[in-house]
Amino acid sequence: MITAAVVGAAGYLGGELLRILLGHPAVRVVRATSERLAGRRVDGAHPNLRGHTGLTFRPMSELDHYDVLFLASRHRETMRVLPGLLGHADVVVDLSGDFRLADPELYHRHYGVEHTAPGLLGTFTTGLPERYRDRLRTADRISVPGCMATAGVLALAPLAEAGLVEGEVAVDARTGSSGSGASAGPENLHAERSGAFRVFAPLGHRHEAEIAQETGLAVRMTATGVEAVRGVQVLCRVRLAEGVAESTVRAAYRDRYRDEPFVRVVAERRGLYRLPEPKILAGSNFCDVGFAVDGPGGEGLLVAALDNLVKGGAGNAMQCVNIRFGLPETDGLEFAGLHPS
Amino acid sequence: MITAAVVGAAGYLGGELLRILLGHPAVRVVRATSERLAGRRVDGAHPNLRGHTGLTFRPMSELDHYDVLFLASRHRETMRVLPGLLGHADVVVDLSGDFRLADPELYHRHYGVEHTAPGLLGTFTTGLPERYRDRLRTADRISVPGCMATAGVLALAPLAEAGLVEGEVAVDARTGSSGSGASAGPENLHAERSGAFRVFAPLGHRHEAEIAQETGLAVRMTATGVEAVRGVQVLCRVRLAEGVAESTVRAAYRDRYRDEPFVRVVAERRGLYRLPEPKILAGSNFCDVGFAVDGPGGEGLLVAALDNLVKGGAGNAMQCVNIRFGLPETDGLEFAGLHPS
Amino acid sequence: MITAAVVGAAGYLGGELLRILLGHPAVRVVRATSERLAGRRVDGAHPNLRGHTGLTFRPMSELDHYDVLFLASRHRETMRVLPGLLGHADVVVDLSGDFRLADPELYHRHYGVEHTAPGLLGTFTTGLPERYRDRLRTADRISVPGCMATAGVLALAPLAEAGLVEGEVAVDARTGSSGSGASAGPENLHAERSGAFRVFAPLGHRHEAEIAQETGLAVRMTATGVEAVRGVQVLCRVRLAEGVAESTVRAAYRDRYRDEPFVRVVAERRGLYRLPEPKILAGSNFCDVGFAVDGPGGEGLLVAALDNLVKGGAGNAMQCVNIRFGLPETDGLEFAGLHPS
Amino acid sequence: MITAAVVGAAGYLGGELLRILLGHPAVRVVRATSERLAGRRVDGAHPNLRGHTGLTFRPMSELDHYDVLFLASRHRETMRVLPGLLGHADVVVDLSGDFRLADPELYHRHYGVEHTAPGLLGTFTTGLPERYRDRLRTADRISVPGCMATAGVLALAPLAEAGLVEGEVAVDARTGSSGSGASAGPENLHAERSGAFRVFAPLGHRHEAEIAQETGLAVRMTATGVEAVRGVQVLCRVRLAEGVAESTVRAAYRDRYRDEPFVRVVAERRGLYRLPEPKILAGSNFCDVGFAVDGPGGEGLLVAALDNLVKGGAGNAMQCVNIRFGLPETDGLEFAGLHPS
Repeated sequence: MITAAVVGAAGYLGGELLRILLGHPAVRVVRATSERLAGRRVDGAHPNLRGHTGLTFRPMSELDHYDVLFLASRHRETMRVLPGLLGHADVVVDLSGDFRLADPELYHRHYGVEHTAPGLLGTFTTGLPERYRDRLRTADRISVPGCMATAGVLALAPLAEAGLVEGEVAVDARTGSSGSGASAGPENLHAERSGAFRVFAPLGHRHEAEIAQETGLAVRMTATGVEAVRGVQVLCRVRLAEGVAESTVRAAYRDRYRDEPFVRVVAERRGLYRLPEPKILAGSNFCDVGFAVDGPGGEGLLVAALDNLVKGGAGNAMQCVNIRFGLPETDGLEFAGLHPS
Repeated sequence: MITAAVVGAAGYLGGELLRILLGHPAVRVVRATSERLAGRRVDGAHPNLRGHTGLTFRPMSELDHYDVLFLASRHRETMRVLPGLLGHADVVVDLSGDFRLADPELYHRHYGVEHTAPGLLGTFTTGLPERYRDRLRTADRISVPGCMATAGVLALAPLAEAGLVEGEVAVDARTGSSGSGASAGPENLHAERSGAFRVFAPLGHRHEAEIAQETGLAVRMTATGVEAVRGVQVLCRVRLAEGVAESTVRAAYRDRYRDEPFVRVVAERRGLYRLPEPKILAGSNFCDVGFAVDGPGGEGLLVAALDNLVKGGAGNAMQCVNIRFGLPETDGLEFAGLHPS
Repeated sequence: MITAAVVGAAGYLGGELLRILLGHPAVRVVRATSERLAGRRVDGAHPNLRGHTGLTFRPMSELDHYDVLFLASRHRETMRVLPGLLGHADVVVDLSGDFRLADPELYHRHYGVEHTAPGLLGTFTTGLPERYRDRLRTADRISVPGCMATAGVLALAPLAEAGLVEGEVAVDARTGSSGSGASAGPENLHAERSGAFRVFAPLGHRHEAEIAQETGLAVRMTATGVEAVRGVQVLCRVRLAEGVAESTVRAAYRDRYRDEPFVRVVAERRGLYRLPEPKILAGSNFCDVGFAVDGPGGEGLLVAALDNLVKGGAGNAMQCVNIRFGLPETDGLEFAGLHPS
Repeated sequence: MITAAVVGAAGYLGGELLRILLGHPAVRVVRATSERLAGRRVDGAHPNLRGHTGLTFRPMSELDHYDVLFLASRHRETMRVLPGLLGHADVVVDLSGDFRLADPELYHRHYGVEHTAPGLLGTFTTGLPERYRDRLRTADRISVPGCMATAGVLALAPLAEAGLVEGEVAVDARTGSSGSGASAGPENLHAERSGAFRVFAPLGHRHEAEIAQETGLAVRMTATGVEAVRGVQVLCRVRLAEGVAESTVRAAYRDRYRDEPFVRVVAERRGLYRLPEPKILAGSNFCDVGFAVDGPGGEGLLVAALDNLVKGGAGNAMQCVNIRFGLPETDGLEFAGLHPS
């Protein structure tokens, strides 16, 4: 069995990692850290794990050595603790935003503070199997992309890689409340957040930089919090290159994702679920991608949806680790999602 | 114009008082206090009031004298500030729980602390027009009942007063999240509270004591938080006295509430809204009451619904003040509620 | 008193018209038609109106003559009944989409059928007080715009009229479920619609044509159903003309809407409600508009929000009628909206 | 591999059966029937199954012979088709209400029609492993209990079996909208059902009879639809027998369910999830049960929660079939549920 530990295990991403790891046939989670809840039962913070684990949270100081160490701690904190943790595992997987951007100036612009470990920037492989599967087979440091970035990149990649789009891309992202984490402030008070259409990042959301970095496109991004706990959906409005028709777009998606276990192309002509919809993805590791286009050389609307805590975080991390350790890529990630839900 | 001030105006009940007062034809709100937000615009905390007021919050120390002073401060805090505020107004209306119970021991049992102004207990008129309209015409201290208590009392009163029920009453109350207030803790984080069926008071909710005090019945009460921002619904399971049939029950409700401007009897034979439903009451001052009964001497289920911030708080307070100052009872409270919503 | 009748009064827009009319100080609603529910009480279909009206639905054949007749019947049906109803009122106000577009070919493209009364197209004044107040003072036929169109036009008008934007506008609209009406099909089944992010019109929603017609801009529109019953929000992504800075944009909005009773400019630097949010607008007649801009000549994101049944329909119609009959423009429309809700 | 077929596979219970069967290591689903959707892809009706199956719906007339046949057709229809299907499988599992009650008169009272196959009543084993595991090992006809009945029985059984409660039990059940099925009428229109507190069965819900039949207690039941798609919670108010204290109650639950793979005792002293909560059970096969008691011989509130489509239907059916075929009881049912969700 591969041994694993989770740092920052009391948060929502940490809980989701634990859920996935506890159901994994070949990995055993042996340590979960939280400074705040040290000594308390893990299933107190994550009640869905009752009956699945007897683990208690421990402080980071009690970490030993593991095959793989997941960091689910917060942005800005992670860059401070990660350097001291590299020796505790063969493979380190970071789910925070701290090691996603290669350029410390971009980091400063988007996270508002100086990076405290700039020398480590650029030493991480981007944890996106659909683009970096080969590198991930040998990667010892993996940085999992942001939830909206993963959705945006997977929506855009087939067309961007094939040169089928031109000019600037407008990305409209919508997200549930769990992305803000378990220790969020008044903005996530139920009475304020319930039923909201909150345009919290009208221009320049930080995942914009990740999408641009991955796709090479000029990206303009807006983010809105809508009523949901889990779920991210991004709409990318693109201009198709001259002569590019719907059949070309469809073929590009089909070809690009034919062998991907966790990307489905959803662009149907009828039904209530014609385009990707987060509602049916809660708990699953799928990123569904789809499109509507206007006619050759016209406008295209690309849509992607995922569960921000799974394919947008913990599930994606698990998929990377499965690749890294030569395990079946779907291990621990078989849950299909629910309908209705 | 009658002048009014609101203490604790930054909270949800305070905001609702301001909304109602700003639309009132005969009362002018001239002061709104908040220690935390002193100096800030009122419509910053209550964005629905944009364009309706230019008031800023002021500290309590800047209170003058008003015709009526509403206290929308918290339980346990209110009993400390109220004695010092009695001189600032002809009429004081308290929306907290601190002066509802006549007995300091009951207060201690339900609020967990000693009452700091026990001498004032019992000097307040209960702010329930349907029971105390006459006393309210001359009352200078009014204590508005709790939201679930108001619903429970209005559901039970017609049968209790007429001796049509026997034995113990089981009250099952359900409530939205706004009852917990604007400064609530992690229990009201959207991701935790959304979609909840949270049995937060399995036995002995504190409004149990108020209902018992008002109806003279033995009351057992359970409270559950369900998905809603506004809204309270109570179900009262009763045993009908011998020979009491549905027609008697219906007549008792009709007679009791015939002239009440804000109580509607809702007990229909078909339709989606056969029994009282908070969903259509948001913003309105109605308490709808209804019933289903089993046959003579059988079981009865009594149902009441209201908006916890309106008839369960600010609207009820306004109705009491209208009565006290001889104004039309519906002034400021004309909003019908929305369907669908 | 001005007399009014409502055709198609059993639907959601019809119910909202009745709610507003029943609270209006100078208009008396004397007839409400529904073929399906003829003979049934109005408050059976609209339970929020219990205690406010004893009206029953009547068939259209029983219409007399009124000062004003509102049509809240469906798209495609309205064009068939409206010609025969023109003689029943001095002023006819249509809330359907059938008389909004001046061009019968555009109608055919967007509604999928031939227009059956093409000769009447172009004889209606657009029911948008913020643009046509003067014409509305004497208009006898008024066509109220679509809910998303109203939001889009009010967001874009200040910049479009002043020539501050260039090129194509991308409109991303989000809507609650009540826009689909009270007789909707499986797509509005709660289990399917709840929590949805449904991109039901990825390209070319029919309100696109209305916005283009009103603003003279090239408009590309996408529409998504999100979790809400009431509420529309539109985001308009624009390119600012050279040299146009935030201060110019802000001034354009302020100047344009300074005297409007139902448009508020909401573009704040902090708080949870910095940009327009439908959550606090349910039941109110406000359309809030706001913006974020990127720097001179950069990108702008314009945001508008409203309640689709009020400013996006019945409330807007009432405002037009107030203007037409020389009444105070806010009569019947004073409700401020709720926070929280 | 064990072969399975699902009749009525287009509905919500049918879809849930397919989801579970498609992930089962030892059962292969080879037929899914729907008359209405015959010829259409299964993943068109159940979009969460995209990528998991290529099955199309077939009419019932094309059924062959299978090891196990699940009936997920409607109440009242099932009794008509089931007799003709008994020959198509070694084991028949019915998820409808038609074969749950042993007494045809009780059936008539609760389902409003005469039973058309009264001779088969009483030939089914109740599909509740926690009570009938031994009989299920050899049962060829299994009738899975109703969702609220399962919750009620599992909450009450430990105390009822041990004689720890006395007198009548008042059951207050709350349910999400998916229990009404995929072809529901206007009562499940999103705009009407969203945010509802709908007391649809104030007295005498039909699951009352099932709970009484299983526990031998006198049961009075009320059912309310609240805002949720999945999820059932029941509260049972009981009178404890003389001298019965909390420790006795806790021991009774612990002992009764110690070895049960899908019942967890949840009765904690702190935290947000102290008592059973459906919110964290979506997709899981757990029924959580808990309690609060008042003191020796006092009142007890027993609480149970489950996902109505899983432990309240398809998952419970799967668990019974696992037992019947000697498979590990948790096969296909490993999903832990999500937090937050």
